[in-house]
Amino acid sequence: MSKILAINAGSSTLKWKLFIMPDETVVASGMVDRMGLPNSIFKVKYGDGQKYQVEQDIPTADMAVDMLLKALLDLKIISDYREIEGVGHRIVAGGERFKESELLNADSLKEVEALAEYAPLHNPAEANGIKAFMKLLPGVPEVGVFDTSFHTTMPKMNYLYSIKPEYYEKYGARKYGAHGTSHRYVSHRAAEILGKDLKDLKMVTMHLGSGVSITAEKDGKSFDTSMGFTPLAGVTMSTRSGDIDPSLVAFLMQKLNLTDPEDMIHILNNESGLKAISGLSPDMRELEQTRTERPASQLAIDIFTNRVVKYVAGYIAEMGGVDALVFTAGMGEGDKVERKRIIDGLSVFGAKIDDEANDVMGEERIISSADSKVKVLLVPTNEELMIARDVVRLSK
Amino acid sequence: MSKILAINAGSSTLKWKLFIMPDETVVASGMVDRMGLPNSIFKVKYGDGQKYQVEQDIPTADMAVDMLLKALLDLKIISDYREIEGVGHRIVAGGERFKESELLNADSLKEVEALAEYAPLHNPAEANGIKAFMKLLPGVPEVGVFDTSFHTTMPKMNYLYSIKPEYYEKYGARKYGAHGTSHRYVSHRAAEILGKDLKDLKMVTMHLGSGVSITAEKDGKSFDTSMGFTPLAGVTMSTRSGDIDPSLVAFLMQKLNLTDPEDMIHILNNESGLKAISGLSPDMRELEQTRTERPASQLAIDIFTNRVVKYVAGYIAEMGGVDALVFTAGMGEGDKVERKRIIDGLSVFGAKIDDEANDVMGEERIISSADSKVKVLLVPTNEELMIARDVVRLSK
Repeated sequence: MSKILAINAGSSTLKWKLFIMPDETVVASGMVDRMGLPNSIFKVKYGDGQKYQVEQDIPTADMAVDMLLKALLDLKIISDYREIEGVGHRIVAGGERFKESELLNADSLKEVEALAEYAPLHNPAEANGIKAFMKLLPGVPEVGVFDTSFHTTMPKMNYLYSIKPEYYEKYGARKYGAHGTSHRYVSHRAAEILGKDLKDLKMVTMHLGSGVSITAEKDGKSFDTSMGFTPLAGVTMSTRSGDIDPSLVAFLMQKLNLTDPEDMIHILNNESGLKAISGLSPDMRELEQTRTERPASQLAIDIFTNRVVKYVAGYIAEMGGVDALVFTAGMGEGDKVERKRIIDGLSVFGAKIDDEANDVMGEERIISSADSKVKVLLVPTNEELMIARDVVRLSK
Repeated sequence: MSKILAINAGSSTLKWKLFIMPDETVVASGMVDRMGLPNSIFKVKYGDGQKYQVEQDIPTADMAVDMLLKALLDLKIISDYREIEGVGHRIVAGGERFKESELLNADSLKEVEALAEYAPLHNPAEANGIKAFMKLLPGVPEVGVFDTSFHTTMPKMNYLYSIKPEYYEKYGARKYGAHGTSHRYVSHRAAEILGKDLKDLKMVTMHLGSGVSITAEKDGKSFDTSMGFTPLAGVTMSTRSGDIDPSLVAFLMQKLNLTDPEDMIHILNNESGLKAISGLSPDMRELEQTRTERPASQLAIDIFTNRVVKYVAGYIAEMGGVDALVFTAGMGEGDKVERKRIIDGLSVFGAKIDDEANDVMGEERIISSADSKVKVLLVPTNEELMIARDVVRLSK
């Protein structure tokens, strides 16, 4: 029995879960919020719903990790640092360098930092978290688990854009995708639930959270995915536009008197999507509640559903069929009405939802009807568990 | 019996066909090339394959139209200008103002010019052509036939991007589509060939030329289309990238040291697509010829086919099925191998090609097999005829 920490560090947050492996039970979890800002918040959940919370300035990742380790001791969640046998870190951008999760050392950590260009808000923060653990838990294996690794199996045909090859060769301009750990986790679980070998299944996994990505999986590998060079591409999301005519970047910059294209991309990432269309909220729950009174809420729902349906259909066609459709993440796990809309939109493939089975939130189950030609599943994602599993596997 | 001119004016070209209506026969056709440049070329084809050609500077549209009318007299194609009972003009951008073809007057011509923002290379040139005819053939009806009109029936869900509504309301940032006259023509012909009412058919029309657009048609109307705010969006084309992650506009501008976003859009429009991927040619015929020796040619073909298949599949799903798939335009009419690849890529919908029927170029026919669940048709496009028909209809 070993204790493994799974870490998800952002620019001002550090979320964590402590697993006992191979049991896969979570003995504690927590988060540091507003890290680097005044009045940071340090929270731990442990035991039978016990909670511990402190508010104080936490200026650095080093300090956050130090507090976290001390809290584990103080709250008697562990009795010695040596109980922690490995730490796994979610890393957003792995580029083409990290095709799998990997044990990190000083050299590979530099490579993680060098990939900051592809995830300027994430990779540097994640590298800081890793450095803090390397300092405070010397000798303990640190494993990097990359959002992009799962998608490195995509064929060239799907990861290349129709632009000059030198933009790919010199600058790495290609489709990397995202949410790979989530897609990997739910596709494995879906195969287990169906009692099939993953390699024999054609699957489309829909990670519908505030970020949305849709992945086609064939032969147990990612074959295509909707997010692109960055997470901006693909379907409509909470605050991201998804695909637009690239000409609009230039056109709108001119109309809005913007000179820095990054400002336009910022708007497309942060002030677009469901939030912009609805004029109300980036949260599908609020749109569901208001759709009968507010046409703009209904329109946002319609556009979202339409874009998801079109992507899924494209993926089914390019795989030459589909055995299973899988919903996961916040909206995918929580919004039965939206799940039904999407599956209704895919009726041409003989997919049918079972309304009774679908009347559920965040629970693993098959939600297609007995006569559906395609299995439809709800599989709550668990990226942290996937990280912990990778740590165990790689630190052996 | 009346003679109708169909005009397609570009920035340096003016193509025309003279029809006898209602027979719909072409009695002469021609083009002015390098208009406004030194050594312009003036060509006419008429009679039984007779040809007339002059090389001289033709600096203006006025002069081009004057030469064209005089040549019709001199070559005895007409004996009096009064025989020309109407002139129809292809216009690229009709915005939301021109929902149908329309008889033009001085006021509506100003509106055509005002839409130049959406087609800076085309609308001003087209307006110049119209003005020249208004001057030289006073009193003769001039009809504008807009590439975008056919798509003005798209539902909001499909023409809106997931961006702030004010960008649409203030600046007209929406999907307009293109090739509308072509999609309208071939869908009408396809319904006639199938002996069905167009309104009862769900159809996807694929205009595969150097520009490519794919349109979903339901209830006899455009329901969705792959080109966007401009013709840059959608699938891979000869020199256009089609859809890319919009973030790449900013990323590549920085890498290429570009300060004007229009320069980046120019690259995406003119130095991308099949030409860029293949490193050889924007012309599918050259890629077909070289694909066994050149992996880059094969890759360009694979990417092109994949993008078309994904769009068509998305459209079939959002219409809830499809009755007919229609190929048209240069590649769609001429490349049987690519037609087969695309239909093979759509096998999940039960579409099957009949290799024997498909062994044809530019001829109207059904090319699906008897057991195909979807009718597949080849229908050569004829935008000029559609223009001539609109002139007759509107000038009555």
